[in-house]
Amino acid sequence: MILLFTDFGLDGPYQGQMKMVLAARAPGIPVIDLMADAPVFRPQEAAYLLAALFPECPEGSVILAVVDPGVGGARPPLACKIAGRWLVGPGNGLLEILVRRYGVEDCREIVPEAGARLTASFHGRDLFAPAAARLALGDVPQAWPEREFPRHADWPDDWAAVIYVDGYGNLMTGLRAASLTADTRLKAGWQEVEKARTFSDLPKGQAFWYENSNGLAEIAVNQGSAAQMLGLKLGNPIVVIPS
Amino acid sequence: MILLFTDFGLDGPYQGQMKMVLAARAPGIPVIDLMADAPVFRPQEAAYLLAALFPECPEGSVILAVVDPGVGGARPPLACKIAGRWLVGPGNGLLEILVRRYGVEDCREIVPEAGARLTASFHGRDLFAPAAARLALGDVPQAWPEREFPRHADWPDDWAAVIYVDGYGNLMTGLRAASLTADTRLKAGWQEVEKARTFSDLPKGQAFWYENSNGLAEIAVNQGSAAQMLGLKLGNPIVVIPS
Amino acid sequence: MILLFTDFGLDGPYQGQMKMVLAARAPGIPVIDLMADAPVFRPQEAAYLLAALFPECPEGSVILAVVDPGVGGARPPLACKIAGRWLVGPGNGLLEILVRRYGVEDCREIVPEAGARLTASFHGRDLFAPAAARLALGDVPQAWPEREFPRHADWPDDWAAVIYVDGYGNLMTGLRAASLTADTRLKAGWQEVEKARTFSDLPKGQAFWYENSNGLAEIAVNQGSAAQMLGLKLGNPIVVIPS
Repeated sequence: MILLFTDFGLDGPYQGQMKMVLAARAPGIPVIDLMADAPVFRPQEAAYLLAALFPECPEGSVILAVVDPGVGGARPPLACKIAGRWLVGPGNGLLEILVRRYGVEDCREIVPEAGARLTASFHGRDLFAPAAARLALGDVPQAWPEREFPRHADWPDDWAAVIYVDGYGNLMTGLRAASLTADTRLKAGWQEVEKARTFSDLPKGQAFWYENSNGLAEIAVNQGSAAQMLGLKLGNPIVVIPS
Repeated sequence: MILLFTDFGLDGPYQGQMKMVLAARAPGIPVIDLMADAPVFRPQEAAYLLAALFPECPEGSVILAVVDPGVGGARPPLACKIAGRWLVGPGNGLLEILVRRYGVEDCREIVPEAGARLTASFHGRDLFAPAAARLALGDVPQAWPEREFPRHADWPDDWAAVIYVDGYGNLMTGLRAASLTADTRLKAGWQEVEKARTFSDLPKGQAFWYENSNGLAEIAVNQGSAAQMLGLKLGNPIVVIPS
Repeated sequence: MILLFTDFGLDGPYQGQMKMVLAARAPGIPVIDLMADAPVFRPQEAAYLLAALFPECPEGSVILAVVDPGVGGARPPLACKIAGRWLVGPGNGLLEILVRRYGVEDCREIVPEAGARLTASFHGRDLFAPAAARLALGDVPQAWPEREFPRHADWPDDWAAVIYVDGYGNLMTGLRAASLTADTRLKAGWQEVEKARTFSDLPKGQAFWYENSNGLAEIAVNQGSAAQMLGLKLGNPIVVIPS
């Protein structure tokens, strides 16, 4: 299957036009919107989020990952084999956390097909989707040269920052819950929050953190918006207060 | 086919992660977002809505219905066969109106697979989606004990309340249009509204009710927002004024 | 494949109910949301947008195009073969620009199936989706009479107006970039904007126009909202200042 992880949103023709390319070139292979609202133009936040979602992606799947503020610029277009899945996307750090956690089995630079149109603003459709379709069919083009994976070595292994704000105002962090302990507190905005198991364990309006369904430490308020109550948004730092 | 009826929204990875489970476990079976914006955390409103959509769901389909504010709590996870379709979801009243209208052919409690991960906050992915995949493949596990359907007998057959507000501010009610007559008036907020055939039959700004495409009485304003004009929101009561 | 181009939005059960009809009647044929946020109730704006997206739609595909403010009224329901694709939708001008650019190979009026339900407000599900399913299966019903395509001859070939506003506030126009020259300026609101290659070529906050990924002249502001900065919205006129 081919999984789409993008910041394009579901509005407009963007996801649809990528799916037309995939359906035409890799007929019969299911295509799933894993997430179309990845952090817009923020490859670093998106990198931690993608790494958290990755273990659920079936082995053998192809992940088309596009968060690409530099589209049309110098970043290399990559196809990387990581833990049995192919990932296709811009070489701007988006795959950094995956490579760090799982290593990279194969790293290639995608070469546009001869004669193919390549618009300046939509490499997702014109370059990455055709590449994903080929990989989904089991074809790793000889014409794509092997290369070193361009590292972002200064990014931390776990990142004490808000990497996603959901529609309820819950704040996902770049911290794996397993990297913390049950009595770790997190300073989020002006408030220190403690760990709880889940929403229903707490009084209304209380802020807390918990291990979310993808293994990340997530800051939430029971029946309220943590983003609003704590005054935090995408990219804001969090402080880990060890026990 | 497998139909998703949830309150997860299309943002975030939630629908996508359920679809990954379904595609991996029930390959080749089409999966359709019937509705991802069911009334959030409101099983009662959602129950009347689901019952209105049900007749259009093809016989033999599996409906994965998750509106589950008590996730991780005590409500039983159910698989119910109703009028030739399997429904999978929490036993919190979400299937009550269906059972009342069609009866229940088979009611079982879903048992998690041995060794499967079960996060506290995402039973849609970890418990209900795997169950739906099995049923879609024609497998009704012996290990799921039969049980009585947990009734919500005090809910009315038709509910004079707003059960869904669409993006235009139209107000779906829990009243089947067939339960009313052509000269029934509905008191919605401070205003009494009469029945019309459809939007184009009325002057701009006029409120009315009509039989919507799923057979419900829906309150609307021609080229305006009924929610805003009448000051009504999800769960608010409506009064039926018989002719 | 069947492509959905509608103004229904992804909220509510509308796209889902059309997909249920398609999956039941044309099993095995992929269905893709090309765009669900076409200009709401604006067939003219939608006509220019659809024509811009059309060249990417694979030959042989069926396009279900529904922007239909007159649903339930007098406009004829059409099935038109245009440049090797079947288009299904209301005869309200939505296909005008396609017909003008490519001609029409076959134009028929869709006749509802005998005994089929036809609600006043949802022809997308009750009339157009069943028609699209038949065409996708290669069946052009004899019962649909040939007819002349109902023209909107007074619409211009390229339209100097805003035909779509995306989530970032970028303004697509009904002007094909190829109909302009590199030194054409566009007067958008109070400001004249010049052509640039893409966003990254310009300072933050600068308005410009560029050829978007579907060949249209699109007005944008680097890291800002053109809609907000220029005070423009859907349907507003633009002025072409020739060089």
